[in-house]
Amino acid sequence: MNSDVGESFGVYKLGLDEEVIPHITSANVACGFHGGDPGVMRKTISLAKQYRVEVGAHPGFPDLIGFGRRNVDASLEEIQDDVIYQMGALQAFAVSQGLKLQHVKPHGALYNMAVANPKIWEAVAEAVAKVDREAILVVLASSKREPLLEIARRYGIRIAFEAFPDRAYGKDGSLVPRREKGAVIHDHEVVAKRALKMALEGKVIAIDGTEIELKANTLCVHGDNPAAVQIVKKIREGLTASGVEVTPMKHFI
Amino acid sequence: MNSDVGESFGVYKLGLDEEVIPHITSANVACGFHGGDPGVMRKTISLAKQYRVEVGAHPGFPDLIGFGRRNVDASLEEIQDDVIYQMGALQAFAVSQGLKLQHVKPHGALYNMAVANPKIWEAVAEAVAKVDREAILVVLASSKREPLLEIARRYGIRIAFEAFPDRAYGKDGSLVPRREKGAVIHDHEVVAKRALKMALEGKVIAIDGTEIELKANTLCVHGDNPAAVQIVKKIREGLTASGVEVTPMKHFI
Amino acid sequence: MNSDVGESFGVYKLGLDEEVIPHITSANVACGFHGGDPGVMRKTISLAKQYRVEVGAHPGFPDLIGFGRRNVDASLEEIQDDVIYQMGALQAFAVSQGLKLQHVKPHGALYNMAVANPKIWEAVAEAVAKVDREAILVVLASSKREPLLEIARRYGIRIAFEAFPDRAYGKDGSLVPRREKGAVIHDHEVVAKRALKMALEGKVIAIDGTEIELKANTLCVHGDNPAAVQIVKKIREGLTASGVEVTPMKHFI
Amino acid sequence: MNSDVGESFGVYKLGLDEEVIPHITSANVACGFHGGDPGVMRKTISLAKQYRVEVGAHPGFPDLIGFGRRNVDASLEEIQDDVIYQMGALQAFAVSQGLKLQHVKPHGALYNMAVANPKIWEAVAEAVAKVDREAILVVLASSKREPLLEIARRYGIRIAFEAFPDRAYGKDGSLVPRREKGAVIHDHEVVAKRALKMALEGKVIAIDGTEIELKANTLCVHGDNPAAVQIVKKIREGLTASGVEVTPMKHFI
Repeated sequence: MNSDVGESFGVYKLGLDEEVIPHITSANVACGFHGGDPGVMRKTISLAKQYRVEVGAHPGFPDLIGFGRRNVDASLEEIQDDVIYQMGALQAFAVSQGLKLQHVKPHGALYNMAVANPKIWEAVAEAVAKVDREAILVVLASSKREPLLEIARRYGIRIAFEAFPDRAYGKDGSLVPRREKGAVIHDHEVVAKRALKMALEGKVIAIDGTEIELKANTLCVHGDNPAAVQIVKKIREGLTASGVEVTPMKHFI
Repeated sequence: MNSDVGESFGVYKLGLDEEVIPHITSANVACGFHGGDPGVMRKTISLAKQYRVEVGAHPGFPDLIGFGRRNVDASLEEIQDDVIYQMGALQAFAVSQGLKLQHVKPHGALYNMAVANPKIWEAVAEAVAKVDREAILVVLASSKREPLLEIARRYGIRIAFEAFPDRAYGKDGSLVPRREKGAVIHDHEVVAKRALKMALEGKVIAIDGTEIELKANTLCVHGDNPAAVQIVKKIREGLTASGVEVTPMKHFI
Repeated sequence: MNSDVGESFGVYKLGLDEEVIPHITSANVACGFHGGDPGVMRKTISLAKQYRVEVGAHPGFPDLIGFGRRNVDASLEEIQDDVIYQMGALQAFAVSQGLKLQHVKPHGALYNMAVANPKIWEAVAEAVAKVDREAILVVLASSKREPLLEIARRYGIRIAFEAFPDRAYGKDGSLVPRREKGAVIHDHEVVAKRALKMALEGKVIAIDGTEIELKANTLCVHGDNPAAVQIVKKIREGLTASGVEVTPMKHFI
Repeated sequence: MNSDVGESFGVYKLGLDEEVIPHITSANVACGFHGGDPGVMRKTISLAKQYRVEVGAHPGFPDLIGFGRRNVDASLEEIQDDVIYQMGALQAFAVSQGLKLQHVKPHGALYNMAVANPKIWEAVAEAVAKVDREAILVVLASSKREPLLEIARRYGIRIAFEAFPDRAYGKDGSLVPRREKGAVIHDHEVVAKRALKMALEGKVIAIDGTEIELKANTLCVHGDNPAAVQIVKKIREGLTASGVEVTPMKHFI
């Protein structure tokens, strides 16, 4: 179970990090480009350490005003440089508190652009390999696993497939774009059930009602509001009650 | 011999890095806060590697418009966080090209504020110790060496004392502030002579004409313009001709 | 009654603008340097227009991460340029909604530095005069009124003196610095009473218990949290009940 | 004849503004988002004033590191807000020196995205109308004039059509994209001849050799390097020798 955290900036507070971090296993920490700042990074890693949560870099486009959610027509070289920079910055805070980076997961528009263009996954994978070959790259779980596994092999890194319990899926296993109706599932009960189905059966009900395969190693959950935090607790309890061991991805990837 | 490099940003070019890097031993690479950007950092490290020049982080205040030359009333905690962030970012580019950080030298206003307030040296020293205890902290050579050596001992790091051949010194061994007349020496012949005197005798002629002690491990030189680059060549040739071995600081600190 | 508003940025929300704006007469709108962004500026002006609240520019240092609260050693020329830029940006949003700038009030560290150094008030006053001579400059009310009135006369602009009901005053009429104990008054009843005393008698009880003169044209109030908004309502009701007409400063300065 | 100027930032210098401004009639001044800063804006307007050159706002995306040349997937509302903000900031500097904004011309990726998507021209036109209905919007001259004229009528503003003597055109009157071979013409003699043909005949030789119509009100020229400045002088002399009066667009649009 992973969650995006450390997205506050200066006096601006975002997200309920204190509430959600105790319930997850992997924290995706913003690195100062789309959110986060040096002080927030330090405090977020300290919080993760306190709850023995593994930390990863969550690099985004240098677009604080757009929170990294706007596509930027950056070159592959620029993307790779931006990821190296942000990984390094976060790694320094991890090391300074006796931790290691467990993983790297691109944020927002960078993630979405990578899903649409595997050359971006490759640029990011190469960045990960150059900075720390032991870090795991988190990618979107879908039916097209092989090209991503091939990229991972080429650069000698591990990848983890991620699923989103609160997002609708097309019957081809792709995420329904946010701008389409029904793309985000707000009913917390439904979200919790989908999470369990993903984790226990490796399956999800697509938006057209068909059941499809979706093998994921990690589930992305949110701590934006108190209700979201309740869902995270519920998912974790449900998984544990079903006999699933919820543990950081480094132990099984 | 060290020089501030990698200060370009985006389309903006600053300094003659290609010309000056071949003649120095240690490159202080800007880390994106007051100058430099991820692509510039990558290229600068690549250039340093090509000429076997050691690389160090040159962290500054987050003030690109003021080029890190304006004092910012930041807290010690903010300063330490900013240094950790920038060290990490640069380290990632070094590691990705098979290099290690040799040193850390604060830039501009951060350097000057540290000279005036040892608590800032301490905050920076602790940052260095937390990220990489093998990195050397570069500080201003002056008559007050002991408090700085004590800080270095406390945090288990090494420090290198630095002198500025093109800057006037007071008879107490302090730098004459830039805003005072005669603070910067523009006559290249004079600068080269001062550099040799600093390196060979550990002495400098202060602004009032008295000769004072100034023991420095490294000399800061500039590559802002072609004349400056000529001076760097001249200093290096002079040192070599005088039997001084010019070598990166990691070999003798 | 004035309040700092429009301080949100991108996805980051700050302050209860919707709640506080209906109760004030003058809105100090952040201009994108220490807080605020173009979209936030548009929405804030729209909200002010809806409640017939006058708008003013609230320029700060270009230090979003420090929220404009850190002193920056900027030159007088840089300060003047920064104020002109921010006034212009805000004016464009006001004009585009059929409004005019009523006033200009520096933010945070820029305000505090101006209080300590009248040359900064002068640089700001000249900026106001250059962009819009009809805009009122808001300055700190204190015992030293004459130098500020002299600056206003020299540049042909009007100034308004401002007092802070929730801040402690020294017996010389200066603000007690925030870092000192008792500098900020948290008891809302006390704050409301001080506001009335300031408005009705032109006096305040200083931190040492003596009653001093403090003639102010406008009171600065806050909308940071629900309790603060209650206080604003209470002050306004108290003033109205006491027969004071609460009206934008342009009507009486 | 218009040229992009004021693109320096802080210590970073870009372009030969002092050399090119004396030879043009309209200066497109960067507004701090992709280049330029408050001090640079003031100095650039002062230079334009000295040579009686009209000034216009040259707004771009908030992407200094990419110099506003990377497409950003901003909403129409964000684009309009960004243009209003930048127009206002520049207007304040113009007004403070006794000048008025003559025109507005989007920069880089914003310009290119508007050429591809008329809804963006419309968002920009509305911004111009809201801030200053007398300002002229500069758009790309092409065969499709009517939709742009219709937008101008709808918002009650004037538009000027612009041509690029140093860029290749397709036979449909569109600009050949920069990434294609031959898109930029480097031979200065050829550029000067094309400029004259555009101005005198309203025609250009397309990349396939056919002569096409291209009616333009203003020619965009560059001051990036000494050779470019020579070309600007040459074009102006050629136009004057041919009996064309070279005058700011406000006089004939």
